[in-house]
Amino acid sequence: MSKSVVVLVSFLLCYAVLHCDGAASDIQLDAKAQSTHRIDSLNLLSYTFLLILTVLTIWLFKHRRVSFLHETGLAVIYGLIVGAIIRYSGSPSHVLNMQVFANDPKYNSSLPPDTVSLHFPVKGPYVKTNKTFQYTFRGEIADPVENEIDLKATFDPEIFFNIILPPIIFHAGYSLKRKYFFRNLGAILTFAIIGTTISSFIVGALMYGFVQLMPAKLASSITFLDTLYFGALISSTDPLTILAIFNDLHVDVNLYALVFGESVLNDAVAIVLSGSIQNYEERYQSRSGGFETKAFFRAVGDFFGIFMLSLLIGAVMGCVTALISKFTRVRDFPLLESALFVLMSYSTFLIAEASELTGVVAVLFCGICQAHYTYNNLSDDTRVRTKQMFELLNFLAENFIFSYIGVSMFTFPKHHFDPLFILTGFTCAAIGRAANIYPLSFLLNLGRKPKIPANFQHMLFFAGLRGAMSFALAIRNTMSEARQAMLTTTSLIVIITVIIQGGATMNLLQWFQIPVGIDEETEALSHQGHNGNTTPRGDWNEISEPDLTRLNEKAFLARIWGSFDTRYMKPLLTHSRPTLLETLPVCCNPIARLLTTTEQMTQEGQNKPNRDSDSDLCIEENDFTNSDLRASSHRPIHSISGHQV
Amino acid sequence: MSKSVVVLVSFLLCYAVLHCDGAASDIQLDAKAQSTHRIDSLNLLSYTFLLILTVLTIWLFKHRRVSFLHETGLAVIYGLIVGAIIRYSGSPSHVLNMQVFANDPKYNSSLPPDTVSLHFPVKGPYVKTNKTFQYTFRGEIADPVENEIDLKATFDPEIFFNIILPPIIFHAGYSLKRKYFFRNLGAILTFAIIGTTISSFIVGALMYGFVQLMPAKLASSITFLDTLYFGALISSTDPLTILAIFNDLHVDVNLYALVFGESVLNDAVAIVLSGSIQNYEERYQSRSGGFETKAFFRAVGDFFGIFMLSLLIGAVMGCVTALISKFTRVRDFPLLESALFVLMSYSTFLIAEASELTGVVAVLFCGICQAHYTYNNLSDDTRVRTKQMFELLNFLAENFIFSYIGVSMFTFPKHHFDPLFILTGFTCAAIGRAANIYPLSFLLNLGRKPKIPANFQHMLFFAGLRGAMSFALAIRNTMSEARQAMLTTTSLIVIITVIIQGGATMNLLQWFQIPVGIDEETEALSHQGHNGNTTPRGDWNEISEPDLTRLNEKAFLARIWGSFDTRYMKPLLTHSRPTLLETLPVCCNPIARLLTTTEQMTQEGQNKPNRDSDSDLCIEENDFTNSDLRASSHRPIHSISGHQV
Repeated sequence: MSKSVVVLVSFLLCYAVLHCDGAASDIQLDAKAQSTHRIDSLNLLSYTFLLILTVLTIWLFKHRRVSFLHETGLAVIYGLIVGAIIRYSGSPSHVLNMQVFANDPKYNSSLPPDTVSLHFPVKGPYVKTNKTFQYTFRGEIADPVENEIDLKATFDPEIFFNIILPPIIFHAGYSLKRKYFFRNLGAILTFAIIGTTISSFIVGALMYGFVQLMPAKLASSITFLDTLYFGALISSTDPLTILAIFNDLHVDVNLYALVFGESVLNDAVAIVLSGSIQNYEERYQSRSGGFETKAFFRAVGDFFGIFMLSLLIGAVMGCVTALISKFTRVRDFPLLESALFVLMSYSTFLIAEASELTGVVAVLFCGICQAHYTYNNLSDDTRVRTKQMFELLNFLAENFIFSYIGVSMFTFPKHHFDPLFILTGFTCAAIGRAANIYPLSFLLNLGRKPKIPANFQHMLFFAGLRGAMSFALAIRNTMSEARQAMLTTTSLIVIITVIIQGGATMNLLQWFQIPVGIDEETEALSHQGHNGNTTPRGDWNEISEPDLTRLNEKAFLARIWGSFDTRYMKPLLTHSRPTLLETLPVCCNPIARLLTTTEQMTQEGQNKPNRDSDSDLCIEENDFTNSDLRASSHRPIHSISGHQV
Repeated sequence: MSKSVVVLVSFLLCYAVLHCDGAASDIQLDAKAQSTHRIDSLNLLSYTFLLILTVLTIWLFKHRRVSFLHETGLAVIYGLIVGAIIRYSGSPSHVLNMQVFANDPKYNSSLPPDTVSLHFPVKGPYVKTNKTFQYTFRGEIADPVENEIDLKATFDPEIFFNIILPPIIFHAGYSLKRKYFFRNLGAILTFAIIGTTISSFIVGALMYGFVQLMPAKLASSITFLDTLYFGALISSTDPLTILAIFNDLHVDVNLYALVFGESVLNDAVAIVLSGSIQNYEERYQSRSGGFETKAFFRAVGDFFGIFMLSLLIGAVMGCVTALISKFTRVRDFPLLESALFVLMSYSTFLIAEASELTGVVAVLFCGICQAHYTYNNLSDDTRVRTKQMFELLNFLAENFIFSYIGVSMFTFPKHHFDPLFILTGFTCAAIGRAANIYPLSFLLNLGRKPKIPANFQHMLFFAGLRGAMSFALAIRNTMSEARQAMLTTTSLIVIITVIIQGGATMNLLQWFQIPVGIDEETEALSHQGHNGNTTPRGDWNEISEPDLTRLNEKAFLARIWGSFDTRYMKPLLTHSRPTLLETLPVCCNPIARLLTTTEQMTQEGQNKPNRDSDSDLCIEENDFTNSDLRASSHRPIHSISGHQV
């Protein structure tokens, strides 16, 4: 069945291509834009076709219970095949490029123009006329002479940051299993922030050292900032494949939370870190070239400033959405409500980008806030709709980017293959990952009650697949040869880790003897000593101790936040109990009354829906009350499950 | 509440703008692309903000039961306000344009280049270097000297055809109430195809005549092809507003079907017609200039060829999706299934565009086929997900385009206000609409059993609001002054009709005494003479006659198609009964067995879901069996309801 579809689509594709060539001779000038449009359509069509193929194959794999390859791995492989076909077949459709010189006397800016009007003599069939065409700014290029860009099946790198990544990152935030995320907050933050920074600098330093030893001419052109940038981009992980398998197998939720939480946050850290490095480079490259202490601290300031401000914008917009959905009855019109939800989330990205902050980070924290607060206020229709829509968008965006990584290996003109450099890249990436996980796990285990056992550490190490973010950062700047070599290395690391590490996950789980088949509910029950139900769970069994020790398990940070959240944030932003009237001091009563809805006051009867969505709270207010805990844990948690494909 | 949001967003907006100005002095060359990106973000942000405002206001209107203004009208009004603010406030951020001349000796094509490399001397802080910047083709411009394009809040017109229109049109097809659509197929096709063509030519001819009488200099530059193009684009209608009100008030479903069906199809006709006119113009403008019989017939051929081929691609892709969803068990994985559905539908658009056909038409018929066949095979999850997603996309796209129409009245640089031309445009558009509805209704009533009463005709006339398609076609080409005047006229017609006609719908319904509050089910019941339930329904009461006369009511075309559909298409593409084994001749049994699923064979027990989705069939196989009919009509019709906002 699927074969006939393939045949049909290929036929139509061929028809379109042939038709395109056939018409090329009598192409009209006015049809120029139209022809560009057709090429764009064909490009997009080949990716759509790739994705359809991926979807059908993955269905076949799932149907036949083949599980050695995840859909992202498949998308990459198909991408590679199609890329090779595009590269080595068909006529090369080179882009016509013209060299022109700036000599417009009326132009008086020191910056390059936004648009260029080209006066071009057109040899029409009857008369030779001078026509004017407009060209828009695209960017600086390094070598104008040999610059025959092949437009075949490549896109502007900025598309990744503005179209592909935002839904992926938002979905990650929106589908976070917050209960376990917050419970492991300390470890996640340590791995994500400290770990990623360590990894970046170690990879950067090692790469720089190795490159200096290389005989290649590359060595002379690579600066420490270049390798540091590489360190930052290669330190972001993307464990889609692994999480999908974790999800299927019901791996321990805490391990899941660690892997997922770390990868989500280190994307944010990596993008801001690489941005700071870029800024540092741009500001100071023209001067001495050496290390500048002042500039370094400014870059550090940049890093924290941009990260915190982006986080703030995301959180504020999330809370504003929560407030709107709480205090208006927009939920009576689910379509309006969904539209509002999507628009507010998207505007978070835009506000951050327009303020020169990092939209991706803002959108991540917006997603977390939307899930944590707004979600509770939404109508059922909107909950389902937004969940399903972002799930689908995420699926499409993810598979698109992975098939693009595959295709671009062959079609992107700015690859630079240097085997030694690539080998070094692989080695350093592995060392950097190890330097993130093992030392920090050791330190964390000193203070942490449910320790991170060795097999979990190994799994964390292997979960460090590289993915969309690394690739997007690497392809952003391919001006110099050094950067091109980095793109090639990054692409290969992504491809290899996704296919090999992703495919080996099952075996690794067995190898490391990591328990599978653990239900979320079971896990929650085990906290209360109901051990009858649980499967043996290695070192983690020690957490099934009496409830009173549970408080020790929680990080100080998580405890403070959890209490603040339950007492002030939740009552303010959602319809949950206790209300602000109960938690705020008496003097604030008038304000508290204003901020408490009647629904909130009278919800005793309709407790269930709110309890349900509340069950992901990191700390229940009445943490000691055994009965209450039992009641909440007996209810299945309807939180959004990450990658359910 | 919503006020504080507005304040907050405006604050952030201001911050972004100020920040942007503040940084402008020390802008780095490498940050040029980034700055463009920031402006893009701000542009998008202003529209997102506009849409948020629209959503909140419309919620307030609905909440307070204000109904004199539909959301699209509101989006237009807000757009006008924001457009005026952008225009008359703030520093003009002019685009820097440079004139360059083609004198690259190595360039040897007679076509303008795809990219231009500009060598530009950069006066850096330390050294003056020659850098090279790349520019990409945008299009031909008429007057390079006075061409100071204002990039503020304007988009490439092609965005409408490639991003905004496809989901709107697909949704229209996907949400078609097929039962009533097919029942009125004859009238709808007549109005849409013949009517739109008549209207185009009448408007074109009238406009040309009027313009020749005008004293303005415009007269000399306008050709008959220009006015014909205007006729085509102004003949497409977009009765969103009216349909939303029809939906709320439960206006007679046949009237609904006529208005909706006609508007959906005349969009398709208008876009193909204008394309043919454009082609005719491009091919023959440089020759004699007069009327060319051969060329005219080629244009007519173009019209039918493009329309039919686009229709075919859409229908084929829809059927292929149906086949895939029937013969694979992809429905076991709803996410994969939804992804497949979306990808197949999107690739329909791309295939048509890549083949130089009309993607919008293809996507419309793809939507109809997806709803008619594929929908029956989908899992519940995918049904809900795709319905809700396209509903939301449609909502956002629609409101975006209407707010853009408002904003662009002030910010789009290529408007040409000519009061006389605008007045003529309004008059001709109204005459054209009348020339479509009244004569054709008269002719249709000669052969039609349930006649179209006069009040329905008036309502059809007034339902001719102009909308997204007219605007998108008008803004596509604004090279000449004539075309600019047409854009202005079209924009104004859209704005006025949406606000005034849209707002007056309620009163018009009362005025024309059109019965409201009619349930679909009630309508279906009345076919069997169960008149007890129905409200008096004017002329249309005559259809509630004995069942035997029902066959006469149906157009010959609809009857043929309905029978073919039930006997061959549905059994082939869905799991419905009868199977092909029963309908195909005995000699084809082997093939029939291959094309019949076991699910189809054994579905007697699980009859209900299939019957349910089948109830929109235009003709039941057993049309005479009264009991069967009653059984089917007692079941509420769960078809997708169009505009439920």
